[in-house]
Amino acid sequence: MANQGLLKELIQSLCCLPGVGPKSAQRMAFHLLLRNREGARQLGRLLEKAVAEIGYCRDCRTLTEAEICEVCANPLRENDTLCIVESAADVWVVDQATTFKGKYFVLHGRLSPLDGIGPDQLGFDLLEQRMASGTLKEIILATNSTVEGQATAHFIGEVAAKHGIQATRIAHGVPMGGELEFIDSGTLSAAFNGRREL
Amino acid sequence: MANQGLLKELIQSLCCLPGVGPKSAQRMAFHLLLRNREGARQLGRLLEKAVAEIGYCRDCRTLTEAEICEVCANPLRENDTLCIVESAADVWVVDQATTFKGKYFVLHGRLSPLDGIGPDQLGFDLLEQRMASGTLKEIILATNSTVEGQATAHFIGEVAAKHGIQATRIAHGVPMGGELEFIDSGTLSAAFNGRREL
Repeated sequence: MANQGLLKELIQSLCCLPGVGPKSAQRMAFHLLLRNREGARQLGRLLEKAVAEIGYCRDCRTLTEAEICEVCANPLRENDTLCIVESAADVWVVDQATTFKGKYFVLHGRLSPLDGIGPDQLGFDLLEQRMASGTLKEIILATNSTVEGQATAHFIGEVAAKHGIQATRIAHGVPMGGELEFIDSGTLSAAFNGRREL
Repeated sequence: MANQGLLKELIQSLCCLPGVGPKSAQRMAFHLLLRNREGARQLGRLLEKAVAEIGYCRDCRTLTEAEICEVCANPLRENDTLCIVESAADVWVVDQATTFKGKYFVLHGRLSPLDGIGPDQLGFDLLEQRMASGTLKEIILATNSTVEGQATAHFIGEVAAKHGIQATRIAHGVPMGGELEFIDSGTLSAAFNGRREL
Protein backbone atom coordinates (compact mmCIF):
# COMPACT_ATOMS: atom_id res chain seq x y z
CA MET A 1 0.00 0.00 0.00
CA ALA A 2 1.23 3.41 -0.96
CA ASN A 3 -0.56 5.33 1.78
CA GLN A 4 1.54 6.81 4.49
CA GLY A 5 0.41 6.92 8.10
CA LEU A 6 -0.49 10.55 8.60
CA LEU A 7 -2.33 10.92 5.30
CA LYS A 8 -4.31 7.77 6.06
CA GLU A 9 -5.19 9.07 9.51
CA LEU A 10 -6.36 12.37 8.04
CA ILE A 11 -8.57 10.59 5.51
CA GLN A 12 -10.12 8.41 8.19
CA SER A 13 -10.72 11.44 10.35
CA LEU A 14 -12.45 13.32 7.50
CA CYS A 15 -15.00 10.47 7.40
CA CYS A 16 -16.42 11.82 10.67
CA LEU A 17 -18.06 14.60 8.62
CA PRO A 18 -21.70 13.82 7.80
CA GLY A 19 -22.19 12.58 4.24
CA VAL A 20 -18.48 11.99 3.68
CA GLY A 21 -17.33 8.45 2.87
CA PRO A 22 -13.82 7.10 2.24
CA LYS A 23 -13.78 8.22 -1.43
CA SER A 24 -14.83 11.80 -0.71
CA ALA A 25 -12.50 11.94 2.28
CA GLN A 26 -9.59 10.93 0.07
CA ARG A 27 -10.51 13.58 -2.48
CA MET A 28 -10.78 16.20 0.28
CA ALA A 29 -7.41 15.30 1.79
CA PHE A 30 -5.63 15.47 -1.56
CA HIS A 31 -7.40 18.68 -2.51
CA LEU A 32 -6.39 20.36 0.74
CA LEU A 33 -2.78 19.18 0.71
CA LEU A 34 -2.17 19.85 -2.99
CA ARG A 35 -4.23 22.97 -3.58
CA ASN A 36 -5.33 24.67 -0.39
CA ARG A 37 -2.93 24.25 2.50
CA GLU A 38 -3.81 27.65 3.90
CA GLY A 39 -7.50 26.72 4.00
CA ALA A 40 -6.67 23.40 5.67
CA ARG A 41 -4.54 25.08 8.31
CA GLN A 42 -7.28 27.58 9.08
CA LEU A 43 -9.98 24.90 9.18
CA GLY A 44 -7.89 22.84 11.58
CA ARG A 45 -7.37 25.82 13.87
CA LEU A 46 -11.05 26.77 13.80
CA LEU A 47 -12.24 23.22 14.51
CA GLU A 48 -10.10 23.01 17.61
CA LYS A 49 -11.09 26.51 18.69
CA ALA A 50 -14.81 25.87 18.11
CA VAL A 51 -14.79 22.62 20.08
CA ALA A 52 -12.96 24.31 22.94
CA GLU A 53 -14.98 27.52 23.07
CA ILE A 54 -18.50 26.94 21.72
CA GLY A 55 -20.98 25.91 24.36
CA TYR A 56 -24.70 26.43 24.98
CA CYS A 57 -26.53 29.70 25.64
CA ARG A 58 -27.63 29.94 29.27
CA ASP A 59 -31.08 31.21 28.28
CA CYS A 60 -32.05 29.46 25.04
CA ARG A 61 -29.59 26.53 24.82
CA THR A 62 -28.43 27.35 21.28
CA LEU A 63 -24.75 27.05 20.31
CA THR A 64 -22.63 30.08 21.18
CA GLU A 65 -19.16 30.89 22.38
CA ALA A 66 -20.58 33.54 24.74
CA GLU A 67 -22.51 32.90 27.95
CA ILE A 68 -25.63 34.36 26.35
CA CYS A 69 -26.15 34.15 22.58
CA GLU A 70 -26.53 37.15 20.27
CA VAL A 71 -30.31 36.80 20.02
CA CYS A 72 -30.90 36.51 23.77
CA ALA A 73 -28.52 39.40 24.45
CA ASN A 74 -30.13 41.65 21.80
CA PRO A 75 -32.30 44.29 23.56
CA LEU A 76 -34.22 44.91 20.32
CA ARG A 77 -35.70 41.40 20.30
CA GLU A 78 -39.05 40.98 22.00
CA ASN A 79 -39.08 39.17 25.30
CA ASP A 80 -42.73 38.16 25.19
CA THR A 81 -42.62 35.75 22.24
CA LEU A 82 -40.69 32.50 22.35
CA CYS A 83 -40.14 30.23 19.36
CA ILE A 84 -39.47 26.61 20.29
CA VAL A 85 -37.29 24.66 17.85
CA GLU A 86 -35.74 21.21 17.86
CA SER A 87 -32.19 22.08 16.89
CA ALA A 88 -29.74 24.97 16.92
CA ALA A 89 -29.68 24.83 13.12
CA ASP A 90 -33.42 25.59 13.11
CA VAL A 91 -32.74 28.90 14.89
CA TRP A 92 -30.67 29.99 11.89
CA VAL A 93 -33.22 28.73 9.39
CA VAL A 94 -36.12 30.51 11.05
CA ASP A 95 -34.12 33.69 11.60
CA GLN A 96 -32.98 33.83 7.99
CA ALA A 97 -36.39 33.05 6.47
CA THR A 98 -38.86 34.92 8.64
CA THR A 99 -39.36 38.33 10.21
CA PHE A 100 -39.68 36.79 13.68
CA LYS A 101 -38.37 39.27 16.23
CA GLY A 102 -38.85 37.31 19.46
CA LYS A 103 -36.48 34.90 21.13
CA TYR A 104 -35.80 31.19 20.73
CA PHE A 105 -35.61 28.09 22.86
CA VAL A 106 -33.71 25.06 21.56
CA LEU A 107 -34.82 21.59 22.71
CA HIS A 108 -31.87 19.74 21.13
CA GLY A 109 -34.19 16.88 20.25
CA ARG A 110 -37.80 15.85 20.56
CA LEU A 111 -39.82 13.76 23.00
CA SER A 112 -39.14 10.14 22.16
CA PRO A 113 -39.87 7.82 25.09
CA LEU A 114 -38.63 4.76 23.18
CA ASP A 115 -35.17 6.34 22.88
CA GLY A 116 -35.26 7.44 26.49
CA ILE A 117 -35.67 11.12 25.62
CA GLY A 118 -38.09 12.72 28.04
CA PRO A 119 -38.73 16.30 29.21
CA ASP A 120 -35.55 16.28 31.35
CA GLN A 121 -33.28 15.78 28.33
CA LEU A 122 -34.91 18.65 26.45
CA GLY A 123 -34.41 21.39 29.03
CA PHE A 124 -38.08 21.55 30.09
CA ASP A 125 -37.09 22.74 33.59
CA LEU A 126 -35.50 25.83 32.03
CA LEU A 127 -38.50 26.27 29.74
CA GLU A 128 -40.99 26.04 32.63
CA GLN A 129 -38.96 28.60 34.62
CA ARG A 130 -39.27 30.90 31.62
CA MET A 131 -43.02 30.31 31.41
CA ALA A 132 -43.43 30.90 35.14
CA SER A 133 -41.49 34.18 35.00
CA GLY A 134 -44.58 35.95 33.59
CA THR A 135 -42.87 37.73 30.69
CA LEU A 136 -44.16 35.40 27.96
CA LYS A 137 -47.34 36.14 26.03
CA GLU A 138 -47.00 33.70 23.14
CA ILE A 139 -45.12 30.50 22.46
CA ILE A 140 -44.65 29.57 18.79
CA LEU A 141 -44.14 25.83 18.40
CA ALA A 142 -41.82 25.31 15.42
CA THR A 143 -40.84 21.69 16.03
CA ASN A 144 -40.66 19.45 12.97
CA SER A 145 -43.81 17.97 11.43
CA THR A 146 -42.80 14.44 12.33
CA VAL A 147 -44.84 12.32 14.74
CA GLU A 148 -42.43 13.06 17.58
CA GLY A 149 -42.21 16.75 16.66
CA GLN A 150 -46.02 17.03 16.77
CA ALA A 151 -46.20 15.18 20.09
CA THR A 152 -43.54 17.47 21.55
CA ALA A 153 -45.45 20.53 20.34
CA HIS A 154 -48.69 19.29 21.93
CA PHE A 155 -46.93 18.52 25.20
CA ILE A 156 -45.41 22.01 25.41
CA GLY A 157 -48.71 23.55 24.36
CA GLU A 158 -50.44 21.93 27.35
CA VAL A 159 -47.78 23.16 29.76
CA ALA A 160 -48.12 26.66 28.30
CA ALA A 161 -51.90 26.54 28.78
CA LYS A 162 -51.37 25.80 32.48
CA HIS A 163 -49.34 28.99 32.74
CA GLY A 164 -51.96 30.95 30.80
CA ILE A 165 -49.68 31.51 27.83
CA GLN A 166 -51.00 31.38 24.27
CA ALA A 167 -49.36 28.55 22.30
CA THR A 168 -49.41 28.61 18.48
CA ARG A 169 -48.21 26.02 15.97
CA ILE A 170 -46.61 27.00 12.65
CA ALA A 171 -48.91 26.29 9.68
CA HIS A 172 -48.73 23.07 7.70
CA GLY A 173 -49.83 22.96 4.10
CA VAL A 174 -48.76 23.10 0.48
CA PRO A 175 -45.21 24.53 0.13
CA MET A 176 -44.99 27.82 -1.79
CA GLY A 177 -44.56 27.05 -5.49
CA GLY A 178 -45.76 23.50 -4.88
CA GLU A 179 -48.19 21.79 -7.23
CA LEU A 180 -51.14 19.89 -5.74
CA GLU A 181 -50.46 16.91 -7.98
CA PHE A 182 -47.16 16.19 -6.27
CA ILE A 183 -48.18 16.84 -2.66
CA ASP A 184 -48.66 13.87 -0.33
CA SER A 185 -52.15 13.29 1.04
CA GLY A 186 -51.23 14.11 4.66
CA THR A 187 -49.98 17.56 3.68
CA LEU A 188 -52.97 18.21 1.42
CA SER A 189 -55.34 17.20 4.18
CA ALA A 190 -53.54 19.54 6.60
CA ALA A 191 -53.78 22.32 4.02
CA PHE A 192 -57.57 21.88 3.73
CA ASN A 193 -58.08 21.73 7.48
CA GLY A 194 -55.95 24.83 7.93
CA ARG A 195 -57.63 26.91 5.19
CA ARG A 196 -58.08 30.62 5.88
CA GLU A 197 -60.27 33.37 4.43
CA LEU A 198 -58.68 35.22 1.51
CA MET B 1 -29.02 37.21 12.53
CA ALA B 2 -28.60 34.54 15.13
CA ASN B 3 -25.19 33.30 14.01
CA GLN B 4 -22.34 33.95 16.35
CA GLY B 5 -18.89 34.86 15.11
CA LEU B 6 -16.91 31.70 15.71
CA LEU B 7 -19.62 29.34 14.43
CA LYS B 8 -19.97 31.48 11.30
CA GLU B 9 -16.21 31.44 10.75
CA LEU B 10 -16.15 27.65 11.11
CA ILE B 11 -18.96 27.23 8.58
CA GLN B 12 -17.21 29.52 6.08
CA SER B 13 -13.98 27.61 6.59
CA LEU B 14 -15.68 24.24 5.98
CA CYS B 15 -16.67 25.56 2.53
CA CYS B 16 -12.99 25.18 1.51
CA LEU B 17 -13.61 21.42 1.29
CA PRO B 18 -14.32 20.30 -2.29
CA GLY B 19 -18.02 19.72 -2.96
CA VAL B 20 -19.11 21.46 0.24
CA GLY B 21 -21.36 24.52 -0.08
CA PRO B 22 -22.81 26.77 2.65
CA LYS B 23 -25.72 24.38 3.40
CA SER B 24 -23.55 21.27 3.82
CA ALA B 25 -20.99 23.27 5.77
CA GLN B 26 -23.70 24.38 8.19
CA ARG B 27 -24.90 20.79 8.59
CA MET B 28 -21.32 19.62 9.19
CA ALA B 29 -20.61 22.30 11.80
CA PHE B 30 -23.79 21.52 13.75
CA HIS B 31 -23.20 17.80 13.49
CA LEU B 32 -19.66 18.10 14.84
CA LEU B 33 -20.52 20.48 17.65
CA LEU B 34 -23.68 18.71 18.77
CA ARG B 35 -22.79 15.07 18.17
CA ASN B 36 -19.10 14.49 17.61
CA ARG B 37 -16.86 16.95 19.42
CA GLU B 38 -14.13 14.35 19.86
CA GLY B 39 -14.05 13.71 16.10
CA ALA B 40 -13.93 17.44 15.40
CA ARG B 41 -11.06 17.97 17.83
CA GLN B 42 -9.10 15.12 16.27
CA LEU B 43 -9.82 16.30 12.72
CA GLY B 44 -8.63 19.79 13.62
CA ARG B 45 -5.43 18.46 15.12
CA LEU B 46 -4.74 16.17 12.14
CA LEU B 47 -5.37 18.93 9.59
CA GLU B 48 -2.83 21.19 11.23
CA LYS B 49 -0.36 18.34 11.64
CA ALA B 50 -0.79 17.16 8.03
CA VAL B 51 -0.27 20.64 6.62
CA ALA B 52 2.82 21.11 8.74
CA GLU B 53 4.40 17.71 8.15
CA ILE B 54 3.28 16.25 4.82
CA GLY B 55 5.54 17.19 1.91
CA TYR B 56 6.66 15.53 -1.31
CA CYS B 57 8.73 12.38 -1.75
CA ARG B 58 12.25 13.19 -2.95
CA ASP B 59 12.15 10.39 -5.53
CA CYS B 60 8.59 10.17 -6.85
CA ARG B 61 7.00 13.47 -5.73
CA THR B 62 3.99 11.83 -4.06
CA LEU B 63 2.63 13.14 -0.74
CA THR B 64 4.44 11.82 2.32
CA GLU B 65 5.54 13.00 5.73
CA ALA B 66 8.87 11.19 5.30
CA GLU B 67 11.74 12.24 3.03
CA ILE B 68 11.14 9.17 0.85
CA CYS B 69 7.67 7.62 0.60
CA GLU B 70 6.78 4.05 1.62
CA VAL B 71 6.76 2.77 -1.95
CA CYS B 72 10.11 4.26 -2.91
CA ALA B 73 11.66 3.08 0.35
CA ASN B 74 10.28 -0.47 -0.04
CA PRO B 75 13.11 -2.82 -1.12
CA LEU B 76 10.57 -5.38 -2.38
CA ARG B 77 9.31 -3.07 -5.11
CA GLU B 78 10.99 -3.36 -8.48
CA ASN B 79 13.31 -0.55 -9.51
CA ASP B 80 13.15 -1.19 -13.23
CA THR B 81 9.49 -0.31 -13.84
CA LEU B 82 8.13 3.17 -13.35
CA CYS B 83 4.44 4.08 -13.51
CA ILE B 84 3.81 7.72 -14.40
CA VAL B 85 0.59 9.22 -12.99
CA GLU B 86 -0.89 12.69 -12.93
CA SER B 87 -1.74 12.98 -9.24
CA ALA B 88 -0.80 11.56 -5.86
CA ALA B 89 -4.34 10.19 -5.58
CA ASP B 90 -3.70 8.09 -8.70
CA VAL B 91 -0.84 6.31 -6.92
CA TRP B 92 -3.33 5.02 -4.37
CA VAL B 93 -5.89 4.08 -6.98
CA VAL B 94 -3.38 2.11 -9.07
CA ASP B 95 -1.82 0.48 -6.02
CA GLN B 96 -5.17 -0.62 -4.64
CA ALA B 97 -6.54 -1.93 -7.95
CA THR B 98 -3.61 -3.58 -9.64
CA THR B 99 -0.78 -5.96 -8.87
CA PHE B 100 1.80 -3.43 -10.06
CA LYS B 101 4.98 -3.96 -8.07
CA GLY B 102 7.22 -1.25 -9.54
CA LYS B 103 7.59 2.35 -8.47
CA TYR B 104 5.70 5.54 -9.27
CA PHE B 105 6.39 9.03 -10.48
CA VAL B 106 3.83 11.77 -9.84
CA LEU B 107 3.61 14.66 -12.31
CA HIS B 108 1.17 16.74 -10.21
CA GLY B 109 -0.54 17.83 -13.41
CA ARG B 110 -0.33 17.38 -17.16
CA LEU B 111 1.26 19.32 -20.01
CA SER B 112 -0.99 22.25 -20.75
CA PRO B 113 0.84 25.05 -22.56
CA LEU B 114 -2.23 27.34 -22.49
CA ASP B 115 -2.19 27.24 -18.68
CA GLY B 116 1.56 27.74 -18.60
CA ILE B 117 2.24 24.17 -17.46
CA GLY B 118 5.31 22.86 -19.25
CA PRO B 119 7.82 20.09 -18.50
CA ASP B 120 9.49 22.20 -15.79
CA GLN B 121 6.33 22.31 -13.65
CA LEU B 122 5.88 18.54 -13.85
CA GLY B 123 9.29 17.50 -12.53
CA PHE B 124 10.67 16.36 -15.91
CA ASP B 125 14.23 17.14 -14.81
CA LEU B 126 13.87 14.60 -12.00
CA LEU B 127 12.24 12.12 -14.40
CA GLU B 128 15.01 12.49 -16.99
CA GLN B 129 17.65 11.97 -14.30
CA ARG B 130 15.87 8.74 -13.43
CA MET B 131 15.77 7.67 -17.08
CA ALA B 132 19.46 8.51 -17.52
CA SER B 133 20.44 6.48 -14.44
CA GLY B 134 20.15 3.25 -16.48
CA THR B 135 18.02 1.29 -13.96
CA LEU B 136 14.72 1.65 -15.84
CA LYS B 137 13.54 -0.98 -18.30
CA GLU B 138 9.90 0.04 -18.73
CA ILE B 139 7.85 3.15 -18.22
CA ILE B 140 4.09 2.65 -17.87
CA LEU B 141 2.21 5.78 -18.84
CA ALA B 142 -0.93 5.94 -16.71
CA THR B 143 -1.89 9.57 -17.26
CA ASN B 144 -5.59 10.28 -17.75
CA SER B 145 -7.28 9.67 -21.09
CA THR B 146 -7.96 13.36 -21.64
CA VAL B 147 -6.39 15.26 -24.54
CA GLU B 148 -3.73 16.74 -22.24
CA GLY B 149 -3.13 13.40 -20.53
CA GLN B 150 -2.59 11.70 -23.92
CA ALA B 151 -0.26 14.48 -25.08
CA THR B 152 1.73 14.20 -21.84
CA ALA B 153 2.02 10.43 -22.28
CA HIS B 154 3.26 10.83 -25.86
CA PHE B 155 5.80 13.46 -24.82
CA ILE B 156 7.22 11.26 -22.06
CA GLY B 157 7.18 8.26 -24.42
CA GLU B 158 9.42 10.13 -26.85
CA VAL B 159 11.87 11.10 -24.12
CA ALA B 160 11.94 7.48 -22.93
CA ALA B 161 12.66 6.29 -26.49
CA LYS B 162 15.69 8.59 -26.59
CA HIS B 163 17.00 6.85 -23.49
CA GLY B 164 16.28 3.43 -24.98
CA ILE B 165 13.56 2.65 -22.42
CA GLN B 166 10.38 0.83 -23.40
CA ALA B 167 7.32 3.02 -22.87
CA THR B 168 3.84 1.45 -22.58
CA ARG B 169 0.42 3.07 -22.30
CA ILE B 170 -2.36 1.54 -20.20
CA ALA B 171 -5.16 0.09 -22.33
CA HIS B 172 -8.26 2.03 -23.28
CA GLY B 173 -11.50 0.27 -24.02
CA VAL B 174 -14.85 -0.82 -22.68
CA PRO B 175 -14.92 -0.76 -18.84
CA MET B 176 -15.36 -4.18 -17.20
CA GLY B 177 -19.08 -4.83 -16.78
CA GLY B 178 -19.85 -2.08 -19.28
CA GLU B 179 -22.48 -2.55 -21.97
CA LEU B 180 -21.61 -1.56 -25.55
CA GLU B 181 -24.91 0.27 -25.91
CA PHE B 182 -23.90 2.87 -23.32
CA ILE B 183 -20.24 3.36 -24.30
CA ASP B 184 -19.25 6.55 -26.14
CA SER B 185 -17.95 6.20 -29.68
CA GLY B 186 -14.39 7.31 -28.82
CA THR B 187 -14.02 4.55 -26.25
CA LEU B 188 -15.58 1.95 -28.52
CA SER B 189 -13.26 2.94 -31.34
CA ALA B 190 -10.26 2.65 -28.97
CA ALA B 191 -11.51 -0.77 -27.86
CA PHE B 192 -11.62 -2.00 -31.49
CA ASN B 193 -8.20 -0.60 -32.34
CA GLY B 194 -6.72 -2.13 -29.20
CA ARG B 195 -8.27 -5.60 -29.71
CA ARG B 196 -6.13 -8.56 -28.70
CA GLU B 197 -6.17 -12.26 -29.53
CA LEU B 198 -8.23 -14.37 -27.13
